Amino acid sequence: MDCQEVLEFLHQQVKDEKNEGKIASYIPELKKVNPKNFGVHFRSVDDKTFSAGDAEKKFSIQSIAKVASLSMAIELVGGQLWERVDVEPSGNAFNSLLQLENENGIPRNPLINSGAIVICDVLISELANPKEEFLKFLSSITGYEVNFDPTIAASEKEEGYRNFALTNYLKSFGNIDNDVEIVLDFYFSLCSIKLSCAELSNLFLYLANDGVHPKSKKQVISKSNTRRINAIMSTCGFYDEAGEFAYRVGLPGKSGVGGGILAIHPGKYAIAIYSPRLNPKGNSYRGMKFLERFTSKTESSIF
Amino acid sequence: MDCQEVLEFLHQQVKDEKNEGKIASYIPELKKVNPKNFGVHFRSVDDKTFSAGDAEKKFSIQSIAKVASLSMAIELVGGQLWERVDVEPSGNAFNSLLQLENENGIPRNPLINSGAIVICDVLISELANPKEEFLKFLSSITGYEVNFDPTIAASEKEEGYRNFALTNYLKSFGNIDNDVEIVLDFYFSLCSIKLSCAELSNLFLYLANDGVHPKSKKQVISKSNTRRINAIMSTCGFYDEAGEFAYRVGLPGKSGVGGGILAIHPGKYAIAIYSPRLNPKGNSYRGMKFLERFTSKTESSIF
Amino acid sequence: MDCQEVLEFLHQQVKDEKNEGKIASYIPELKKVNPKNFGVHFRSVDDKTFSAGDAEKKFSIQSIAKVASLSMAIELVGGQLWERVDVEPSGNAFNSLLQLENENGIPRNPLINSGAIVICDVLISELANPKEEFLKFLSSITGYEVNFDPTIAASEKEEGYRNFALTNYLKSFGNIDNDVEIVLDFYFSLCSIKLSCAELSNLFLYLANDGVHPKSKKQVISKSNTRRINAIMSTCGFYDEAGEFAYRVGLPGKSGVGGGILAIHPGKYAIAIYSPRLNPKGNSYRGMKFLERFTSKTESSIF
Amino acid sequence: MDCQEVLEFLHQQVKDEKNEGKIASYIPELKKVNPKNFGVHFRSVDDKTFSAGDAEKKFSIQSIAKVASLSMAIELVGGQLWERVDVEPSGNAFNSLLQLENENGIPRNPLINSGAIVICDVLISELANPKEEFLKFLSSITGYEVNFDPTIAASEKEEGYRNFALTNYLKSFGNIDNDVEIVLDFYFSLCSIKLSCAELSNLFLYLANDGVHPKSKKQVISKSNTRRINAIMSTCGFYDEAGEFAYRVGLPGKSGVGGGILAIHPGKYAIAIYSPRLNPKGNSYRGMKFLERFTSKTESSIF
Repeated sequence: MDCQEVLEFLHQQVKDEKNEGKIASYIPELKKVNPKNFGVHFRSVDDKTFSAGDAEKKFSIQSIAKVASLSMAIELVGGQLWERVDVEPSGNAFNSLLQLENENGIPRNPLINSGAIVICDVLISELANPKEEFLKFLSSITGYEVNFDPTIAASEKEEGYRNFALTNYLKSFGNIDNDVEIVLDFYFSLCSIKLSCAELSNLFLYLANDGVHPKSKKQVISKSNTRRINAIMSTCGFYDEAGEFAYRVGLPGKSGVGGGILAIHPGKYAIAIYSPRLNPKGNSYRGMKFLERFTSKTESSIF
Repeated sequence: MDCQEVLEFLHQQVKDEKNEGKIASYIPELKKVNPKNFGVHFRSVDDKTFSAGDAEKKFSIQSIAKVASLSMAIELVGGQLWERVDVEPSGNAFNSLLQLENENGIPRNPLINSGAIVICDVLISELANPKEEFLKFLSSITGYEVNFDPTIAASEKEEGYRNFALTNYLKSFGNIDNDVEIVLDFYFSLCSIKLSCAELSNLFLYLANDGVHPKSKKQVISKSNTRRINAIMSTCGFYDEAGEFAYRVGLPGKSGVGGGILAIHPGKYAIAIYSPRLNPKGNSYRGMKFLERFTSKTESSIF
Repeated sequence: MDCQEVLEFLHQQVKDEKNEGKIASYIPELKKVNPKNFGVHFRSVDDKTFSAGDAEKKFSIQSIAKVASLSMAIELVGGQLWERVDVEPSGNAFNSLLQLENENGIPRNPLINSGAIVICDVLISELANPKEEFLKFLSSITGYEVNFDPTIAASEKEEGYRNFALTNYLKSFGNIDNDVEIVLDFYFSLCSIKLSCAELSNLFLYLANDGVHPKSKKQVISKSNTRRINAIMSTCGFYDEAGEFAYRVGLPGKSGVGGGILAIHPGKYAIAIYSPRLNPKGNSYRGMKFLERFTSKTESSIF
Repeated sequence: MDCQEVLEFLHQQVKDEKNEGKIASYIPELKKVNPKNFGVHFRSVDDKTFSAGDAEKKFSIQSIAKVASLSMAIELVGGQLWERVDVEPSGNAFNSLLQLENENGIPRNPLINSGAIVICDVLISELANPKEEFLKFLSSITGYEVNFDPTIAASEKEEGYRNFALTNYLKSFGNIDNDVEIVLDFYFSLCSIKLSCAELSNLFLYLANDGVHPKSKKQVISKSNTRRINAIMSTCGFYDEAGEFAYRVGLPGKSGVGGGILAIHPGKYAIAIYSPRLNPKGNSYRGMKFLERFTSKTESSIF
């Protein structure tokens, strides 16, 4: 089977099996999606693309956006970023406050909520117009326009008590420089971005190509920062299921509660999957299943 | 520079810098080593070897042996192993009891003490003569004889209160089938194995070659189990510094408090470093430094 | 020695010893006080009063006010209060978020910050004009007017990130009904009350007299609620030093970071001490010392 | 109603209600008891005794014995005891290991398992024949012989993995001086003592009388140590239900998983209840119910 056949075969196979798990329901906007949505899009560094199902359907990428804000921040401030956030797996749920108390307000890594909020604070301090410049940064990567979804952002804010708790808590440790409201306004905007699988695999293809987007030739981040972000995704990209993902799938990646998963094979490809039902750990049920079979069938685990 | 030159250059460079950290002192046998010992040995899947410094000096491999017992157990009992131990990073020190209490006696992963003790219990249940058969398993990989060091094992036992605590605790949850004394006798023997860097990189070369040792052609473990073990080392091989190691070095690996580090580049090579002074997380100070520079200079991070 | 002599003797004795500890510095208003302030006031249920030192100097009673808000809430809503807050010692610092995460947003007891914030939320829901009615409740007990200090309240709010974190966190669990801003405005007002030792021992004398203030004859709370509040103070009144206080002093009581301590001998007396330097647990250094010697000398521990 | 009538009335009332909860089942010896057993015995410092139900039936007093070992140890070594064990409520289950890890092996208080094990270690170091001398100490209080039950002790040992874990863990922190086996042999013997309610209230009557047993006139412990032990029982006597017990019952006390509860009214009386079904926190279901009604009806809470 060639790659397109594998994609179609596995997409059909997973589709034929029971679709388990629950759609994220903490905000109304996420609840509205069709649970049957199921798309996958593969894009190689040498510009081959394959897809199956709802690969062009837009969805809320949620936490996957944290990889983009981390990319931007690491280039802007470099190594001093790690004085404010660590790179260790958390071993806890994505919105846990537990470790912050024992670790003086230094989030475990930049891909859990607390860490991503600190990254937002860094960007706000560094940028004159954070939201505009962040969107421009994203759009410059592929040439396609990327936008926030204000309805989703507003919905997040309305139910975001735990994120308000986290941010105030971080600020009590002195690890937030800007106003809590401003930091979270940026954070909720970030999480509200909607992309299709096709756009997602395109946007993050630079992570599979030493930091350079192969089409636009833009050097998004340095080669060494690319390796570091892939390493962080590998150990921290799936909350308390990061080990399971490495074990089953064997690729660096990042999931979002919207049902999206991005995975990177360094040097080879980016792949995006979307299916909104989530397993108990908050990762796409079908996405995890599909990816496990995909790297197994194509023998493309990095391990 | 070719690989031998890189090895020699970095070995000299790190040697010229201050040798920080502390030698493990919890057992007398470990305290006796010369803090200046510093060796490195590289072995590729196509049988090229390079080395520098004390590459032939034997040292106590300690926790690195857990990779071997995991290899043997995963082949013997397969997937049902994961009913008794998880594959998630612990985010805690190697001998922590904290998570066991919240997680019903299921260790976070097979490379922390509690998980490795469960693996020992599994091997004892599966094997007629556990210690003999385990040594035979190791010796069969390379053809060289491997032995326990009874002095070190006895020394471990004498000071092993925390491991006795862990094992009794696991047993209180029903996750140890055999006698505590017998399980720990095996565990302490395991940790007492002494190998040189040259022997270490040779022994575990199968992990870089889809489970087959390239010289002996022995299929030590299956291809898919090889990937899984590499994945587990990648997320869990360095206790609460696993993320840091992935971030800085970018290879699956495992360290021991004796000062050894094993790292694997899947498809390419195994490398072993030995230097007994440990950083505050319990990993070889010079070993970490050397490996970070090595994968950076040779651009051989897997990410 | 009679009681007045004991008071004077111990006051002088403690005053002659080194005044250790630190003044609370998290808000500017608290930092301004004179560290040498040291007063004590004793008031018995049969209307005898004795005092020493700065017994008439007003200070910020801070968390001691939580006993008053609890008194008011328990009378208003009765036993259903305990569906939203527990009565167990926390074993953690006063502003810890740790336990809330494991216990679904139910604070351990009404005298730690999180519990007191829930009590404020209850009062806001029950009262038409919470702040006015609360002050009226306090003033009605003794006949003396009690007021908030707006400067202190504003100062608390400005630095109150951890309390904003706690309240948002409680709200994320559904355990806060009103707006976070409104709840904390009430909470910070509560903590800003300034009283002298003489006023403090007078205000809470009802806790020593089965709920009835002996002078005004007002039944502030029922007899059984009096016993319950004394029990809660006894197990939870001194954060993670509650056991120590019971062990050394042997009276129900409550401390505040302003340096005040209130202690109650059920059936006999109320005593208030003020000295602003705090021990590492956040309780008045001289206050603890004085009370230990006082109950020892007068043999008036309840145990 | 006089006291005897109250006892009989409440005994009958509770007996007529559903007997909920579970008998402790972790050792076979405890499982064998009749769940309907229900006795109560009251003894005042002026030698009045009242009882109802199975007040003469012997049962395993289990953890209540920890009050006796603490009494003996505190007299033997005095204040230096508190360098090895704290006096704070634990906020956790009786056999938790969690806090030990964060608190360097210092148990929270002497009435949870870890703390009682340290007390046993202290007694073993201080006494030439610990078991004999401890029994002699107990027998000397009332003049009645007290004995260990070897069947129960052996049964405890067989299933005591968690206590073996705790003791090894304490030893790893250097907080156990003697052999783990010897310490636990003493600890399990301690827990195996069988007494009736009548004997129990008699044995511990010294705690209600400033340390002197009113009948034998023996000064068991000093007056100040009596107050301290009562204070510790008050904050720590019922594991994570200590606050609830203070709130509902309002007396210092100690429970055991055998279904016994001892409560002390300082200056007035000791009362013992026995009913083997336990509530989810491990305290006698009927015992808690009876005592709450008893102190309410007799208005004898200390608060």
